[in-house]
Amino acid sequence: MKKQYLLAPGPTPVPPRVLQAMSLPIIHHRAPAYKEVFEDVREGLKYLFQTQQEVLLFAASGTGAMEGAVANLFSAGDKVITVNGGKFGERWGQITNTFGLEVITVDVPWGQAVEPRRIADLLAENDDVRGVFIQASETSTGVAHPVREIAELVREREDTIIVVDAITGVGVFALPLDAWGLDVVVTGSQKALMLPPGLAFAALSEKAWKFNATSTLPRYYFDFAKELKNALKGQNAYTPAVSLVIGLREVLAMIREEGLENVFARHERLATATRAGVQALGLDLYAPDAPSNAVTAVCVPAGVDGQDVVKTLRTTYGVTIAGGQDQAKGKIIRLAHLGYVDDLDVITGLGALEMALMDLGYDLNERSAVRAAQMILRRK
Amino acid sequence: MKKQYLLAPGPTPVPPRVLQAMSLPIIHHRAPAYKEVFEDVREGLKYLFQTQQEVLLFAASGTGAMEGAVANLFSAGDKVITVNGGKFGERWGQITNTFGLEVITVDVPWGQAVEPRRIADLLAENDDVRGVFIQASETSTGVAHPVREIAELVREREDTIIVVDAITGVGVFALPLDAWGLDVVVTGSQKALMLPPGLAFAALSEKAWKFNATSTLPRYYFDFAKELKNALKGQNAYTPAVSLVIGLREVLAMIREEGLENVFARHERLATATRAGVQALGLDLYAPDAPSNAVTAVCVPAGVDGQDVVKTLRTTYGVTIAGGQDQAKGKIIRLAHLGYVDDLDVITGLGALEMALMDLGYDLNERSAVRAAQMILRRK
Repeated sequence: MKKQYLLAPGPTPVPPRVLQAMSLPIIHHRAPAYKEVFEDVREGLKYLFQTQQEVLLFAASGTGAMEGAVANLFSAGDKVITVNGGKFGERWGQITNTFGLEVITVDVPWGQAVEPRRIADLLAENDDVRGVFIQASETSTGVAHPVREIAELVREREDTIIVVDAITGVGVFALPLDAWGLDVVVTGSQKALMLPPGLAFAALSEKAWKFNATSTLPRYYFDFAKELKNALKGQNAYTPAVSLVIGLREVLAMIREEGLENVFARHERLATATRAGVQALGLDLYAPDAPSNAVTAVCVPAGVDGQDVVKTLRTTYGVTIAGGQDQAKGKIIRLAHLGYVDDLDVITGLGALEMALMDLGYDLNERSAVRAAQMILRRK
Repeated sequence: MKKQYLLAPGPTPVPPRVLQAMSLPIIHHRAPAYKEVFEDVREGLKYLFQTQQEVLLFAASGTGAMEGAVANLFSAGDKVITVNGGKFGERWGQITNTFGLEVITVDVPWGQAVEPRRIADLLAENDDVRGVFIQASETSTGVAHPVREIAELVREREDTIIVVDAITGVGVFALPLDAWGLDVVVTGSQKALMLPPGLAFAALSEKAWKFNATSTLPRYYFDFAKELKNALKGQNAYTPAVSLVIGLREVLAMIREEGLENVFARHERLATATRAGVQALGLDLYAPDAPSNAVTAVCVPAGVDGQDVVKTLRTTYGVTIAGGQDQAKGKIIRLAHLGYVDDLDVITGLGALEMALMDLGYDLNERSAVRAAQMILRRK
């Protein structure tokens, strides 16, 4: 017997009650039974995105909604800024280039957040910037970018919108669309939403909808206006991923039961405990100055290969975490703590990590990640 | 207690063994456990599509793969022919127009198949036609278009490909990609594949891959070349819909166990029995000359509204079928018999239909759809 534990930054574990709901016989997406589900989902998504706007739903993974945000709101030749401080920032650059936008890339060293000052300067120098593309949480480096500050810079400009990839942000920490004046927020199902992958989401401000009205790029499957029109009638433009939508109703109910503020506080607590734990082992955080509460990226000690840590955890202890990509390959490991994850999952992850590090010859030397985390997590 | 029966042309019922497989704890899409699943899936899809080519897989509904077939193989201004004899033929027109192709629309009266002669003439008159877009099975009308004959017309032309929406064709009747020289075949998960919606598929001939090499339309999420490159390494470009892929392995195993020829024969038998049944009631087939084995479209009798039939079946008898759309609204009903459907499901559907028609005042006058179907389905 070897139990499996999933502590990667997506897919994240799916709660049993959700697996159960999704395993009921399938229903037809034009039948009244589905409409009821979809009504609940629409309300729940507004609560989650903290908005009065409609949240659009697509059968796709998050990248589909990212593409939609470009194809529905801009036109070829539009000047935009993309923040590139990791794999997903790089993706904004790829998508905007694919669709023929004129892209100013703000390169940020991996593990660091972008300085709002750099965006402010570029906006000042370029009257004609129409969009700023950023990650709320750059999953590849464990960095949380200062979305709120950058949204404030954009807010005062009539012809500029901020487009936020919040795939590991929504449901992890506060990103209130209406209150912060975020223009586009996209996410996916397999992160804090605790579902299998296969659903993508996009919510737009009124300002962003005005951009949609003048955008001329081609889109069909990810047609935001068509999807909005259908959503207001209680249906989807194309066949939705019915079983995932049924699971979605369940997770949105769970989030509402817990309360969004409590959900954010839980993620904050788990992230704090994880960081304290790995630091207690003498390991450095990869993103010490702006760590995301979704995932903690940790520098592996000299002499240890990060890929070996990932492999040992998986094969010896049944724990799936993520390693580093590209320039961070072998240098970092990423411990996720988002979604259906609680205090003792952090203890599990850190406990397994300690054993794997010992197995790989790292001398823990009486240090304990578990104990450091316990001091944050204990309840009395 | 009211049991629910799903006899609509998608989503179709999901076998219990598949629901069970999909309700296991989620696995990570970069972990070895997923790679094993994906290897099986790749093999199974080649068997299903009757091809040596790789079959690409997307987290999307079928329309996503349709868009991909346009965006990956053509360039703005390319001249193409679309066959428009129903809602899905219309969709080929919408997508090709959206991407700026020069579209020759072949309008076909609803309920009829396109005559290959018309395509032959257009091809003769237009040396520069690069693509012919068609449905194998036009779900909105219950028509099967003569894909094989049209593929033969296209096959001899070096610079023309045939693009087949086989969303209710693959796994219903023979559409051997290699043997017939089909260039692109797309389908979705929620039809003969017996899965919830959320997966789309596309397979390409070598000739179609050459079109991909010169196509300049923008695509990112549905990037066929990128997906192929990843598939050959045993992975997906973007996060796949893991739970659906796990279900897919199960249904592909079921199809292989039954044997593709037997699967086709079963659909043929169920369709024949359904047609015989409704005709025995004195009802006309909507597509008498070229009926699809996926779904039978039936003209409702004078004085009866098709929408009332659909509603009575659903609310009184718990049976979900489909009505007509647009010009066929209220005039037809559509009884599906594809996917996880067997002989007695046809008896169930026809038995319920008889009761609904009586409830709506139609005099059956001793006629029996059930008996007519039984004469085809009985096993001795």
